[in-house]
Amino acid sequence: MKRVIFIGAGNLATNLSLEMRNRGFEILQIYSYTLQSAQQLGEQLGCCYTNELKEVRKDADLYIFSVKDAVLSSVLNQIPPNNGLWVHTAGSIPMSIFEDYTNRYGVFYPLQTFSKNRRPDFSDIPFFIEANTESDYDSLTAAASIMSRKVYSASSEQRKHLHLAAVFACNFTNHMYAIAARIVEEKGLPFDALKPLITETATKIQSMAPLDAQTGPAIRYDENVINKHLSLLEDESLRSIYKELSGSIYNFSNNKK
Amino acid sequence: MKRVIFIGAGNLATNLSLEMRNRGFEILQIYSYTLQSAQQLGEQLGCCYTNELKEVRKDADLYIFSVKDAVLSSVLNQIPPNNGLWVHTAGSIPMSIFEDYTNRYGVFYPLQTFSKNRRPDFSDIPFFIEANTESDYDSLTAAASIMSRKVYSASSEQRKHLHLAAVFACNFTNHMYAIAARIVEEKGLPFDALKPLITETATKIQSMAPLDAQTGPAIRYDENVINKHLSLLEDESLRSIYKELSGSIYNFSNNKK
Repeated sequence: MKRVIFIGAGNLATNLSLEMRNRGFEILQIYSYTLQSAQQLGEQLGCCYTNELKEVRKDADLYIFSVKDAVLSSVLNQIPPNNGLWVHTAGSIPMSIFEDYTNRYGVFYPLQTFSKNRRPDFSDIPFFIEANTESDYDSLTAAASIMSRKVYSASSEQRKHLHLAAVFACNFTNHMYAIAARIVEEKGLPFDALKPLITETATKIQSMAPLDAQTGPAIRYDENVINKHLSLLEDESLRSIYKELSGSIYNFSNNKK
Repeated sequence: MKRVIFIGAGNLATNLSLEMRNRGFEILQIYSYTLQSAQQLGEQLGCCYTNELKEVRKDADLYIFSVKDAVLSSVLNQIPPNNGLWVHTAGSIPMSIFEDYTNRYGVFYPLQTFSKNRRPDFSDIPFFIEANTESDYDSLTAAASIMSRKVYSASSEQRKHLHLAAVFACNFTNHMYAIAARIVEEKGLPFDALKPLITETATKIQSMAPLDAQTGPAIRYDENVINKHLSLLEDESLRSIYKELSGSIYNFSNNKK
């Protein structure tokens, strides 16, 4: 499992390939649909690169497909057949997507949000592994364990739910930050003033269940404060979000034992 | 501004009174509607306590009202008149609430989420100050500066928007965590697996604008993933939240320049 080819050069592929290179894997080649992206990452890694699927080499141990969900099937169709282990890194795609193309396949899913210009600490990133055979499962677990202390097994069904949960915990959370930033900046106040609150909110749930950490006017549906807040929100869509989330907090808080 | 009385013994009053005591203020007395709460905090502080408003002492320099928004007026009505400076700690209440009761008043608003069993680092907590006179404004700024490096001025109008923004950045964000926890725990997966993602999401926006940090299927309204996720959510209210937030992310992402 030493020789690796990445199909894709996006945020996840960039971070994972750099981490694997640093941990002793040999990255043989980078493919990207866009030559510029392939070249950029290939040069960072000091390996060859291509934007032609038919030029993907056949001599790697591990092929990591990290492309947009919608194009994965078409990419698999065009890749030259080989004897390597094929894995994808996607939350919402079942492992079975590979079964028409090869006998050796699996999933290698790091649960983290990646940006090209930030290098997260991989030792803390949970990897969720799935594979067609026990021996490939063991190889993927061993590969992930070189980078991370947190390697788990997850079925395709479980992984779909992990990805859904990640949308709430990351994408939707970040949108809450974006709305908060818009609200203060419209009043000439710095978004910086909210950062300690954001940090504390994320830190709290490292040691408390989120249900127990919940604070604010929605827990007891304090209509006095809620109506004041609604009257400040000029954007109808933000008013609707405020109402729905307040109602949902009330329901969660009052249904817990 | 050395001698302080707290009217209220909730999460904020508990944390602020303990911090002020540790920073050299003399806490004279704690009032709480519930004798048990007053006693608990009074004993922590080593000061006297009462659950009778008419017993609130008249000899403090600073009276910090930290009670539920809905009861503040009624509390102000019953407090024995005195010559101290009266402030509240609420985001959504205008400073003018005091004007029928005293000539010396202001607002002392620490923007943070407080729990009784956690002591946040006050040096990083932004304080927003407002006061009726310049000299009381200066006194409050000096008092806040003993605890925090971040002391700002904010009008009642600005503070309302800060509080609204805090609901998004803290209360609604925590609810995203609670929903994510429910999703994974229903599938037998540990909420712990999401914690590195939550930490990274909150850390990213310390150095990136939230709009630039946004990732996930909603940015390009990837209906393939979005519809898969909606089909996994059995709770109609969570489906509705998912749809609204995805639409809102799409709008934010596509309206930025």
